[in-house]
Formats: sequence, structure tokens, C-alpha cells
Amino acid sequence: MPEFRQNMVSKEWVIIATERAKRPDQFLQKKGEKAPLPPHREDCPFCRGNESKTPPSLLTIEKNGSWALRVVPNKFAALQSHLTTQRKHEGRFLKADGFGIAEVIIETPAHNRTIATMDIEEVRNTVWAYKKRYLALAETGKIDLITIFRNYGERAGTSLEHPHSQMIATPIVPPHVRNPLYQSQLACDTYGDCIYCGMMEEEKRQQVRMVEETPYFLVLCPFASRSPFETRIYPKIHRSSFASITEEELMEFAGVLQRTLKRLYVGLNDPDYNYIIRSAPIEDTDVKYHHWYLVIVPKLTTPAGFEIGTGIYINTTLPEQCAQFLREVSIQ
Amino acid sequence: MPEFRQNMVSKEWVIIATERAKRPDQFLQKKGEKAPLPPHREDCPFCRGNESKTPPSLLTIEKNGSWALRVVPNKFAALQSHLTTQRKHEGRFLKADGFGIAEVIIETPAHNRTIATMDIEEVRNTVWAYKKRYLALAETGKIDLITIFRNYGERAGTSLEHPHSQMIATPIVPPHVRNPLYQSQLACDTYGDCIYCGMMEEEKRQQVRMVEETPYFLVLCPFASRSPFETRIYPKIHRSSFASITEEELMEFAGVLQRTLKRLYVGLNDPDYNYIIRSAPIEDTDVKYHHWYLVIVPKLTTPAGFEIGTGIYINTTLPEQCAQFLREVSIQ
Repeated sequence: MPEFRQNMVSKEWVIIATERAKRPDQFLQKKGEKAPLPPHREDCPFCRGNESKTPPSLLTIEKNGSWALRVVPNKFAALQSHLTTQRKHEGRFLKADGFGIAEVIIETPAHNRTIATMDIEEVRNTVWAYKKRYLALAETGKIDLITIFRNYGERAGTSLEHPHSQMIATPIVPPHVRNPLYQSQLACDTYGDCIYCGMMEEEKRQQVRMVEETPYFLVLCPFASRSPFETRIYPKIHRSSFASITEEELMEFAGVLQRTLKRLYVGLNDPDYNYIIRSAPIEDTDVKYHHWYLVIVPKLTTPAGFEIGTGIYINTTLPEQCAQFLREVSIQ
Repeated sequence: MPEFRQNMVSKEWVIIATERAKRPDQFLQKKGEKAPLPPHREDCPFCRGNESKTPPSLLTIEKNGSWALRVVPNKFAALQSHLTTQRKHEGRFLKADGFGIAEVIIETPAHNRTIATMDIEEVRNTVWAYKKRYLALAETGKIDLITIFRNYGERAGTSLEHPHSQMIATPIVPPHVRNPLYQSQLACDTYGDCIYCGMMEEEKRQQVRMVEETPYFLVLCPFASRSPFETRIYPKIHRSSFASITEEELMEFAGVLQRTLKRLYVGLNDPDYNYIIRSAPIEDTDVKYHHWYLVIVPKLTTPAGFEIGTGIYINTTLPEQCAQFLREVSIQ
């Protein structure tokens, strides 16, 4: 029997369409669909030796006399850092200059790696750089929201093969972000505590959607997953912003992130995905009602007219089955 | 210079990324990418002669002793009509049986046509069937929202070639629909009139995003278009629900819809698209604050991590240039 499930925070619904249900292994990507990449490409702006093809580095991690990670301004940024943040009217419409800061985290010099296949040190460098640059951008004073994300593969909207993440800082908190914050604030006003913390308690009680638990993190497929294998990593200690993560938690986070992506990489043959770290807006860095998390959205299905029109996603897999599948993937 | 633009109703923002800007003609689809379809396929459940492969027809339009259009229940529906609409708790989570009604409008017996290339009579049949079935579903009493949509092509999420639209009736109004309604209600409480009517006045004044104007309809590329060639058809007479369209308006609507899709078909070499008719929820069928419209979203770009994370879409074309391009397409 199909069912509606509600996202506890955003209040959006999904349909778990059991009549069309697919087993998790039906999302296996075809082997050999992706040609193996070379470890180095002359024409790649992010490969070693081509440093002059990017703007100067904002943050570099060195190893053995060469760079191991670089953060650079996005040369093709959708937003620019020299503009104003002022709103303007154009007749009845509202607009603003495209002020913002966009940076690229080049995670490793090796062209042919990805988080799932890197040395753990490279993953640690990556998440450490996320925090370092987040804090630096937050201090500029003109930024309201910082979004950290990774687009992996063509179906996830990237054409650049070289392993990289992105960070975009905007002077705007959009309704898409504000509405769930408002809901979680209402819930906190009502029940007195964080709705995400409550959700995690429930997930630990039910156990069926858990993928992994470590001292500091929970990995799970959410109750109201919008698409097959949506997977989230939540810190168990309440913090509203990724920026507040401790050094010890950060190192554990690197391992959890890599293992989770490896489960997808091995279990589904290297699917494309987006991941996003959802932190509270800058001025809400330390609030009771938001709880940061990382969400991975594998690109296995195509949202169509119904999803665009209603925001109700039709998901043809049970999150419980996806979680079980991911738990059982051998990643040693 | 890039700019932020706000959707006047939903309050969501887009980035018009002029630094990455593409000219409209750079979205031309490759000729010959889609193999021409045969007029009939033995194995197509929607082709003439295969009527037994679908559930019995709910509405049939006949011509010359055979069917010209059929509406049938969706055999692979994500929702089912025999369930209850009651919400249930599962621990802290909320869910409901997957009650709903899903129908398919088989627009023509010809396998190889689409709205842009049909006889106008077939388009008229199609929109007439939309209204007829909308009214029938609204009368069942268990439905809160009816979404009419068309997924065209693989990138738009359909694998069925035969020309068809869909209609899904749900017992739920999700936040994705409710939030903009709430905003337009606030605007109406503030200014005393429909925000969409005001937007159309502004568009007629500025002229730059208009594609076509007829006695009853305006076609335009919205100020805050989320993606290249987003195009909307608005009725000029205020009505909150598509169900209230008159017979005369409906016949004109068929022509406007076909011409608009033909501009995309001819101008961009047959791109994939979704279109959606956004009507008010059933119980708000006759309100001042909502105004129905049809939105066409051509599938020319891929939303990535930033869009998923923030709801801020990065659009690499100027809506003004897209509108001009569409106006100038020769569709005679």
C-alpha cells in the first residue's frame, strides 16, 4: 500500500510508492558506464602544474613540498564579491546586485579520486578546509548564509571531473531555508527542545533506517526520503552550525562521510550525487532550534511535473530497505 | 553584473548569472538527437488497438467512429483511490495511507505527435478533457488539490513516448503549494487585490518579458525565471482555478498553449519539458488572492547542490532575451 510520509521539520510530504516499488539493487549503475579517469590531465585547471589557471589560492595545505589541497575563488562564480547587498525596486519587482562569495575546494591533486576512494587524510583536509573557510567567510560581516556542497558527476550538474567541493556565501536567507527554520523554531517553542534531537531519539528507538552510529554521528535514510538512497549524517551533540564542530568531531566526521559515500560507491557502482551541508544562517549560529546536518542525494531518478508542481516527491523505494542495503555493503 | 531577483509571490530568489551568461540560441538541442517516432507502435499501451492494455476509459472523445482522446486511470499510479485519508502517527513521525486519484489523458491515437505538432482540434480536446476530469474529481469530496501536468521526454522524467498528460488528485495541500498561497493572501490583505493581476500590469508596462498577448491570455518569461526559457501562460481575467475557465477561454487557451510550445519546439529543436497547471486548492476555488496559470519548464539545465540546498536557482540566461527569442520564432 502506498503511503504519504511527512518531513517532520519542513512539513513537506513524500509518497512512498510501494506499487511501483523497486528493490534497492535495481538502482545499481551500469558497470563501465563511467570511463576510468587518468591520475593527471594536462588540460585540467585543478591538476598540479596548472595552478596559474585558477585565481591565487586562499588556503593551501602542503605535503612533501607540494600542495595537497587548495581553496580558490570560483573563476566562473555566479556571484561577485565587490558588489553591494542593497535591494532595489524595478517597478513592482525586487532585485539586488549579485553580491556573494563563491569558492572551490580542490580536494586533492589526484584527478582520478573521489571522497569514497581518497586517502582518509585527504578527506580530513577537505572537511577541515570547509570549517576554516566557513569561519573566514562568516567574519566578513556581509554574509547571511554559507552553503557547502559537492556536485559529483554529470547527472549532479558538474562537468568538471577533478575532485572538488564548493562553498557559496550569500547575503540572503531564502524562504526555502527560512521556512523549515521557522517550523523548527515553532516546534522548539512548543516542546522546548530541538526537533532534530527528538527525531534522532525516535530513529534510535525504531532502528530501521539507521546506517551507522559512531560516538559523535548518526547516519540514516530519512523517514520521508524524497528519493532513493537519500542519506543524512547528523551530529549527535546539538549544534546549529557546522562551524561549531570541534577538531575531534571533525576528524570523526571525515571517516563517517567517507564510509557513507563508499557504501554508495560500492553498493550502487559509483552513482552521481549531490551533497549539501545545511547549517543555520550566520546570525543563528548558536540556537536551540536548528541542528546542522549533511544530506546526500544520489541522482538515480528524475523529478517530473508532479514534483515540480506540488513539492511532493514520489519515491519508489522504502527508506528502510535502502538503509538495510547500505548497512550490508562491505566497505572494508 | 549578476543579480538576485525575487519571485514576487513565493519570495524565493534566483540568481541571473550574467557572467556565465549564455545566449538563448546556445540552448538549441542537437538535431537528430531524438529519433523520429512511428505513427503507431504495436507494443504501445496507448496506441489504437491496444485499449485492453489500459484500465477502461473514464472519458472518451470520439471522431469518425473511433476514439480521438481517452482518459484512463493510471495503471501504475503512485496513489490509490480505495484508501482512507486519515493521518496516523508512527512514533513521532506522521504518515497517511496513499489515497489519491491518478489519471492519464491519452491526447491522440497518433504515437508520433506532441502538442506542438498536433491538429488544433486535438489540443482543444486535451484541455477540454483537463477541465472535465478536474470537475469530476473535485466532486468526489475527498480531494484537496488537483495537479495537471505533462512530462515530455526522458529528461522530463517520462519513458512513455505516446502523447499524454497526467492528473493527480491528492487529499493534501503541501507547504510547497500552501506557502505561496499564504504569501499571496498576505499581499491581498495588504493591497486589496490579486498580486498576479498586479504582476501582469507591471509586465504589460515593461513589455520586455512578454511573448504573446491574446484577448484572454498573457504569455511571458517570468522576471525571476528559475531556468532558461521558463514560460508562463496567465489568464487575464482573474480566476483562482483552472476549473472556472469558460468554454470560449478554453478554446483560445488551446491555441495559446500550442503556439507557445511550438515556439520552443521550433526555436530550440524540440526540447524536453514539464508543464504544470497551478490551480488553487479545491476549497479555494473562488478566491481573490490566487490566480491560476500554466508554467512550462524546459529541461535544459541540471539543478545542483546549491539549488537543492538553498532553493536559489542559478539561471544563466536573461528572461528578457528568452522572451525576445521566443517572440521572434517563426511558427507559421
